[in-house]
Amino acid sequence: MVEKKAFQDYYSEQMSYCYGCGRLNEVGMKIKSYWNEDENTSIARFTPKSYYIAFPGYVYGGLMASLIDCHGTGTAAAAVYKSEGRKMGTKPELRYVTASIQVDYLRPTPIDQELELIGKVKEIKGKKVIVEVNLYAKGQLCVKGEVLAVKIPENMISIS
Amino acid sequence: MVEKKAFQDYYSEQMSYCYGCGRLNEVGMKIKSYWNEDENTSIARFTPKSYYIAFPGYVYGGLMASLIDCHGTGTAAAAVYKSEGRKMGTKPELRYVTASIQVDYLRPTPIDQELELIGKVKEIKGKKVIVEVNLYAKGQLCVKGEVLAVKIPENMISIS
Repeated sequence: MVEKKAFQDYYSEQMSYCYGCGRLNEVGMKIKSYWNEDENTSIARFTPKSYYIAFPGYVYGGLMASLIDCHGTGTAAAAVYKSEGRKMGTKPELRYVTASIQVDYLRPTPIDQELELIGKVKEIKGKKVIVEVNLYAKGQLCVKGEVLAVKIPENMISIS
Repeated sequence: MVEKKAFQDYYSEQMSYCYGCGRLNEVGMKIKSYWNEDENTSIARFTPKSYYIAFPGYVYGGLMASLIDCHGTGTAAAAVYKSEGRKMGTKPELRYVTASIQVDYLRPTPIDQELELIGKVKEIKGKKVIVEVNLYAKGQLCVKGEVLAVKIPENMISIS
């Protein structure tokens, strides 16, 4: 069963103003990520506003990079909590930022519908997590992304 | 001297609804790209709205990927017009979409100021153009991007 509380709902207040996924960013996209039933992959669903187009009928690439980015860092944090046998949201807070992102646009992505992002952790190594994120529209793979996420130093979480 | 008319101002109406750079997208970011004085590099300047943050004080990575994307495809089109000895905006229209993008976030990018993007064409090969885009804040290199842009088939420009 998909959890009702999203990964991002566990972020501390200070870490919840991200335009992409922060629950406290009033105008942001509030992306929500969850484990899939298998707990091996993560899922986020998002329906873009009609003006988020590259050209009429198709989703803007920058938006999809943004979705992949936030779903990737959220999945990284959740995966490390899990790998350490810890509950989401427990202290010290685990939060990740994107060190690099690679996005391959395989085909134009139709707009005016829900997009589905599936995340899969490829590697956890020290402070780095590599997450692969595939984006689907109408069940068709449209975009492939890979996020190299890096743990935010604890002092940056509290002072930034 | 920097041209007054941006690359994106030459796009046909049909190609001008992009959320990132379309002059006709009413809520979009309307990124504007120009050749630098040397005509060897391109430049775009953009001041993010205050809510485009990853966390307080710092620009959201997805926004910067978007800026790099549109500045990259705009630079690709302008570079091919130039390499073919054609004036911008002449028919058949040359327009490029992003096939893939790689973005490396070198350091947190401070918000509440103008960002500067510098594009440089690395390669033009058939329908593909590779553009390197560096993003600076306060003169400091914060983000490095690379865009693989691909020419849009002419029939897609007119029918899409």
